[in-house]
Amino acid sequence: MTCPDRVRIVEVGPRDGLQNEAAHVPTREKVAFVNRLADAGLSAIEVSAFVSPTWVPQMADAADVFAGITRRSGVRYTALVPNLKGLARARDAGVDEVAIFPAASETFSRRNLNQTIEEAFAAGKAVCGEARAAGLRVRAYLSTSFGCPFEGAVPPARVAELAARLIDMGASEVSLSDTIGVAHPGQVAAVLSQVATRRIPVGRVALHFHDTRGTALVNVYAGLEAGVTTFDASAGGLGGCPYAPGATGNLATEDLVYLLDGLGIATGVRLDAVIDASRAIEPHVGHPLPSRVFRAGEATRLRTPS
Amino acid sequence: MTCPDRVRIVEVGPRDGLQNEAAHVPTREKVAFVNRLADAGLSAIEVSAFVSPTWVPQMADAADVFAGITRRSGVRYTALVPNLKGLARARDAGVDEVAIFPAASETFSRRNLNQTIEEAFAAGKAVCGEARAAGLRVRAYLSTSFGCPFEGAVPPARVAELAARLIDMGASEVSLSDTIGVAHPGQVAAVLSQVATRRIPVGRVALHFHDTRGTALVNVYAGLEAGVTTFDASAGGLGGCPYAPGATGNLATEDLVYLLDGLGIATGVRLDAVIDASRAIEPHVGHPLPSRVFRAGEATRLRTPS
Repeated sequence: MTCPDRVRIVEVGPRDGLQNEAAHVPTREKVAFVNRLADAGLSAIEVSAFVSPTWVPQMADAADVFAGITRRSGVRYTALVPNLKGLARARDAGVDEVAIFPAASETFSRRNLNQTIEEAFAAGKAVCGEARAAGLRVRAYLSTSFGCPFEGAVPPARVAELAARLIDMGASEVSLSDTIGVAHPGQVAAVLSQVATRRIPVGRVALHFHDTRGTALVNVYAGLEAGVTTFDASAGGLGGCPYAPGATGNLATEDLVYLLDGLGIATGVRLDAVIDASRAIEPHVGHPLPSRVFRAGEATRLRTPS
Repeated sequence: MTCPDRVRIVEVGPRDGLQNEAAHVPTREKVAFVNRLADAGLSAIEVSAFVSPTWVPQMADAADVFAGITRRSGVRYTALVPNLKGLARARDAGVDEVAIFPAASETFSRRNLNQTIEEAFAAGKAVCGEARAAGLRVRAYLSTSFGCPFEGAVPPARVAELAARLIDMGASEVSLSDTIGVAHPGQVAAVLSQVATRRIPVGRVALHFHDTRGTALVNVYAGLEAGVTTFDASAGGLGGCPYAPGATGNLATEDLVYLLDGLGIATGVRLDAVIDASRAIEPHVGHPLPSRVFRAGEATRLRTPS
């Protein structure tokens, strides 16, 4: 196996994580969380989303969070935007990057975005055009790339076709997302193989796994073997997807860093500092965070002789 | 990657799982659990342990469990035995196989078994000799093969040396055990590579992972890539190791089957039937079982429109 020497982790806890938590987290705690994650060495952080506060109340304070954080040199601060209105708010907030989020399956697109795939791609293209003209980088998630809660399997060739369209419309990077946590490593290899036939450089592919069925890390491993060097993760394993039946949290940043540290793959991220960030946010989400490494660390900590 | 076409799962839930649960499970429920697991297609089941009831009260009914189960043709029923006294009780109960359990690190051996490594190997050798003379197969666990809670790292060459000694003394199979759930796939490859230099056929190597840090499945994947075809797992993710600080449950059978099904590797095990077995035992252990696939299935079930 030839693994990459270095991997970039895109921290999605403050947005994808908190957005899917029921408890309302105070703005100052979100700000402190982002700052702690940057201090831990995470160089790409999805901070918030400029979406309708009616639909996503947790993200209503996006501008305040951006205004509150301490910008750390070398860190890319990202916000999710669904349309040009969101883009305008994101620009005002001084984001480094915006993220768009179309889906690879029609039913999920309609139920989650209230748009057909083509409508979501058209909206994404408009955002790409304006964002790039303004000098902003664009990241594109492609939801349900490994399975749809309504339609089941999604053909890898279809995923690759849509990923290529996102690159063609100006996305710097496409994050193939296992929204409902059903992927297995054979499927990861199959999707990446199809993506390669579309001549998308592997450096522009990211992988976004949910640990719903415990397969997130083994899917990362299959991605590493295929040369992928960018992986999304959420501190503590925060979040999930409320629209996907049975979906639980994102891959935890701690679990990912533990694996990569073990494999000798550099990330620039300090595991203990991520655990500290999770420990500080945990009381505000109202339940124990699911990260296995976080929990094992807490158990050891609790048992440390006084 | 060249994966094996077929894998054998050794189900350890009734012993390694229940032994490490605080709640006392009634004998009739243990019997039903074993029968359900056999019905699900598991062809090797560790049923109980003939150990001191003073030390392990949960296993005090080992003989009654063996007397109660319905022996299914083609299924191997195993019991853990620490010494010749345990072996005698196991033989009386009509086991197909006994399992011995020395460790690869001195401090763990002393604290867990109250024996030095050499004393545990001497006891194991005596069990092997008598068991094989009586026509019984012997399985050997090698605890702390990937790390010790007291000593930290365990050298792969040392693990390989001890594994070779277990094969030489008559064990049919050595199960390299990550007792505290710290292994990562690079380490799995390193240990298996050392084992190969000892000329132990890979068909006589099993891998036993704990999911303490979420790495059990990715470690299985590394094992598959190295040609290993036998993996231990515990229905529902039951159990752990009470002597190892911070250790949580075994790799869940459901999670392993989900991965292998996805990879197209045959196991003969029906996932839905394992979930049924876990669902039936869950109320008797007094807490939600940690298997991710089990929980995802339960969540879907709960949300099924009535």
